[in-house]
Amino acid sequence: MTADAILGAVAFDAQGLVPAVAQQFDTGEVLMLAWMNRDAVRETLATGRACYFSRSRGALWRKGETSGQTQRLVELRLDCDGDALLLLVDQHGVACHTGRRDCFYRSARYGEWQEIAAPMVAPERLYGGG
Amino acid sequence: MTADAILGAVAFDAQGLVPAVAQQFDTGEVLMLAWMNRDAVRETLATGRACYFSRSRGALWRKGETSGQTQRLVELRLDCDGDALLLLVDQHGVACHTGRRDCFYRSARYGEWQEIAAPMVAPERLYGGG
Repeated sequence: MTADAILGAVAFDAQGLVPAVAQQFDTGEVLMLAWMNRDAVRETLATGRACYFSRSRGALWRKGETSGQTQRLVELRLDCDGDALLLLVDQHGVACHTGRRDCFYRSARYGEWQEIAAPMVAPERLYGGG
Repeated sequence: MTADAILGAVAFDAQGLVPAVAQQFDTGEVLMLAWMNRDAVRETLATGRACYFSRSRGALWRKGETSGQTQRLVELRLDCDGDALLLLVDQHGVACHTGRRDCFYRSARYGEWQEIAAPMVAPERLYGGG
């Protein structure tokens, strides 16, 4: 499958990136927000596994390559303006590098950010610190 | 409530913006992705209604001000890196300016984008075209 028709409708920004929201397909949990460039979209569609673009590393980021916490793509969606993607995925393990299930574990309560979720896995275990 | 502690932990980008995902609090639907600046976060917290920053208009965008399709804030969350927000909201009516419930109505299927949701309201009705 060529991804040209898919890529052509996506409004990448001046850096060639588009924000991508990953949502657990069955529970509806919003797992994380990341960024994709053309190659990341192409690879995600070709392999069926979420691949993002790491802005800090300036390189493709095959989600779970190091940690094993992969995301199987269930469906890729595009918004009305073409400038945001939604990935329905099946998250293996945890999405967040802190070991939490999702990245949005801080909630604005009483004028401050309060942690509302604890790590399910120690980050050292995810990234082979031992 | 001062929002200083809240705003201080948010990593706004070089344009002073942060991507914000709006999710229907009870069903889990991802409604839209928009952008917020400091004032938008401050106003959203103060009023309990979602206020974004319109990049095209370069101004605060009080969601639903014209269309009546407001979003009541249920909870504001911040991700691990502090550079993405998740708004749990109660969407009144439809979130998308096309009259659809959410903005992610195109799905990548068979190498092309296919519409998977129809408008629930005619856009003319939302924006007083009549």
